[in-house]
Amino acid sequence: MECATRVTYIHIPSNVALIMSNSLAPDLERWFTEHDARHLDELFAFLRIPSVSARSEHNDDTRRCADWLADAVRAAGLTAEVHATKGHPVVLGEWRGAPAGAPTVLVYGHYDVQPAEPLDLWSSPPFEPTVRDGRLYARGSVDDKGQLYLHVKALEGFLAVRKSLPVNVILLAEGEEEVGSENLAEFVEANRERLTCDAVVISDSSMFAPGLPSILSSLRGLAYFQVDVVGPTSDLHSGSYGGSVVNPAMALARILATLHDADGHIAIPGFYDAVQDWDTQARADIRALPFEDEHFRAETGAPSLGGEKGYTTLERIWSRPTCEVNGLLSGYTGEGAKTVLPSKAMAKVSCRLVPDQEPAAIEALMKAHVARVAPAGVTVTVTHLHGGRPWRAPLAGPLYDAARRALAAAFGREPVIVGEGGSIPVVGDFQRILGAPVLLMGFGLPGENAHAPDEWMAVENFQKGMRAVSALYEELGAQ
Amino acid sequence: MECATRVTYIHIPSNVALIMSNSLAPDLERWFTEHDARHLDELFAFLRIPSVSARSEHNDDTRRCADWLADAVRAAGLTAEVHATKGHPVVLGEWRGAPAGAPTVLVYGHYDVQPAEPLDLWSSPPFEPTVRDGRLYARGSVDDKGQLYLHVKALEGFLAVRKSLPVNVILLAEGEEEVGSENLAEFVEANRERLTCDAVVISDSSMFAPGLPSILSSLRGLAYFQVDVVGPTSDLHSGSYGGSVVNPAMALARILATLHDADGHIAIPGFYDAVQDWDTQARADIRALPFEDEHFRAETGAPSLGGEKGYTTLERIWSRPTCEVNGLLSGYTGEGAKTVLPSKAMAKVSCRLVPDQEPAAIEALMKAHVARVAPAGVTVTVTHLHGGRPWRAPLAGPLYDAARRALAAAFGREPVIVGEGGSIPVVGDFQRILGAPVLLMGFGLPGENAHAPDEWMAVENFQKGMRAVSALYEELGAQ
Repeated sequence: MECATRVTYIHIPSNVALIMSNSLAPDLERWFTEHDARHLDELFAFLRIPSVSARSEHNDDTRRCADWLADAVRAAGLTAEVHATKGHPVVLGEWRGAPAGAPTVLVYGHYDVQPAEPLDLWSSPPFEPTVRDGRLYARGSVDDKGQLYLHVKALEGFLAVRKSLPVNVILLAEGEEEVGSENLAEFVEANRERLTCDAVVISDSSMFAPGLPSILSSLRGLAYFQVDVVGPTSDLHSGSYGGSVVNPAMALARILATLHDADGHIAIPGFYDAVQDWDTQARADIRALPFEDEHFRAETGAPSLGGEKGYTTLERIWSRPTCEVNGLLSGYTGEGAKTVLPSKAMAKVSCRLVPDQEPAAIEALMKAHVARVAPAGVTVTVTHLHGGRPWRAPLAGPLYDAARRALAAAFGREPVIVGEGGSIPVVGDFQRILGAPVLLMGFGLPGENAHAPDEWMAVENFQKGMRAVSALYEELGAQ
Repeated sequence: MECATRVTYIHIPSNVALIMSNSLAPDLERWFTEHDARHLDELFAFLRIPSVSARSEHNDDTRRCADWLADAVRAAGLTAEVHATKGHPVVLGEWRGAPAGAPTVLVYGHYDVQPAEPLDLWSSPPFEPTVRDGRLYARGSVDDKGQLYLHVKALEGFLAVRKSLPVNVILLAEGEEEVGSENLAEFVEANRERLTCDAVVISDSSMFAPGLPSILSSLRGLAYFQVDVVGPTSDLHSGSYGGSVVNPAMALARILATLHDADGHIAIPGFYDAVQDWDTQARADIRALPFEDEHFRAETGAPSLGGEKGYTTLERIWSRPTCEVNGLLSGYTGEGAKTVLPSKAMAKVSCRLVPDQEPAAIEALMKAHVARVAPAGVTVTVTHLHGGRPWRAPLAGPLYDAARRALAAAFGREPVIVGEGGSIPVVGDFQRILGAPVLLMGFGLPGENAHAPDEWMAVENFQKGMRAVSALYEELGAQ
């Protein structure tokens, strides 16, 4: 996902009771137990390839990684092709042996990784996987090679033990997720028929807490703007001109201050019109999650939490839209004093959106609002830089029912339904282009350092994850 | 002066009548006419020395310039010493031959200049003085070598023609004005007795318009702050955390927006308590000056002018205090979109002060106000970086009467009394340490490009300036 860092805000109180559930079928469990050591070895080999998509010096590694993955997919019993794109290749695996009329599941993941820098902050080298205290440390361990590879191994196990799958499977792995998935939508569009499916399954997110399997219920969308305020044609002396010319930095501050009211509600007229409030049950479910504000606050280092009045912290992150300043720049920003009246001031301002807010509609509202409050004496421009729609999972239906049972079988307790404040644009793309529901079932954990030094994945979750996925196939077959 | 650029906002309407006045004594006029060409040649030599005080590679040039000036002062008939400081030297000239009981005048100027960069924007090399269309182009021409040297030549002329001066004269020229006059106050303190005087005369400012001799009536003071807002200990992902943590950049904008009301009045409680409103006559005098808002606006390039309700543009600059944002910095400021929730936000905020506002009192009011409006969830610190008192000229008394008559004699019309929105800290230092009134009588012109490429001084003003100064000595002798 596009997170700069994954959230690590969870502290599980010791009194959370585990709910035992059905366990995995004994034949599958036996096979996975026999092969767990080999699977970990193979994942090590996958992780040793520095497939850093953002760095052209790693282009050969990234290509080699795609080939390695295609081989692994073939070894699992699927066909596999490596498709060139304008950027890094797409690996496409297929198994089409299900009975006539059986549904098709598309599994999506990515084999590229974030840059490993700063290297000196790693406790062990990023491309030499190491297990310490049950955690597998390596760049890409959880984001997303470990989570992608457990799908490959689940397919291999199911095919090895049962000789067949109850559904047709397409495995689609891209090599550009960490650089914006620029060629993925085009690839999916171009291969729409071949990729036709009844469900998309993605494991590229985190569980709410250790031992707490989680299904993602929502993602926020995004509307990202740049606000430019221009006054005089060049910086002026604040003594010789100050007081007679509108100060662009002050004008910008006054504009930004109109975006919220005193209670933290966004004050752009019409902003909430399309927001679908979460129902009482969904809000109660969020409140029932093991979450402590103080633990979350301490982890951010902020003096206290804050936000929109009338909502809890998790509601503010998952269910409510935001309007944030992401950056400010104007005039003199060095050390000491310089008496400049700036010619211009810039703010990056972005809104996280919730269903059914549309980025284009929010863009229009933002532009109209800023035009209304902009003072005379400066020219104010709002540019829309980037946008993405919010997403909400259907949560009901056979796919989600199967996922709930499968996660319970692998983890020994019912999954929780959790939200996500960030955005994963490919989710919307799959839903839009393929018209299939998407299931986000992640096996990461809070504090796993995705995109940061010392990225890790819990070995237990790698192993339970592949059991959960094989249980998912079993559940889908039982339907 | 500390201006980044001198104001060039004047357009003289053609219907301004010139008031003829007494002219300079014929013996003095004859001498100056005979020597004008030589004086210009000497100024050329002075300007060719690149005494850039800010650049250590020019330290030898700056030292050489001090020696050159000391020689010129001796040639004019004064004694001269070059005093070392922690930085660049001070040149001290003296003539103490006046009758017992005669007053002492201290003339202050500076021989250092601003860096000349960017060199490619100069029409002729900055240290090769060139006259084009009556303008002498060179770095330092008007700021301040030309204005300092006309004092040296006025003294030489008066002594050559009259063999004596009616007052004792101290000529004090520093080499660090363009780098903050860091060692000047200490030098004046250390030599307080020797520098004891009855008046200080400074020519380092501009006339309101061509042909319009001007006496400066006021300078604004300064209280310069840095406002730091800190929230989380590091930048957070705006998706994963946005809405639950107070955004420091947004908090800063909301704080800055409280500094003014909708009419442009400063909304810090108590801010105007010490402001001495200008009397009706002073405001009428300002309104009578040849000034056009539209010309001023066009020169700044701003879409329209703005400021405190109830005041004209010149009143806003000269007579009213301000509160300006000089700089803003927070979060991501590069190209494109980065979804960061910044850990901190910074603003440079400065107030221009008018009599009798005290920087220390404004500091206390600013800190109390910001503490009052700062939201929970962030830590806000206000640091006072730099301050200076405002200044108002006495305007009455023998020194100012003499200056009015002297300027009228040299320029053929009565001088106007003008304000200055910027600050010249040495003025307050002289007044405070030496207890003498200060006369600011400048011969620059709007648009002269001080501190910018193509700095120039009108040759006519260099010549009329030295006549005005010699007339000042004559007027002081007649008192």
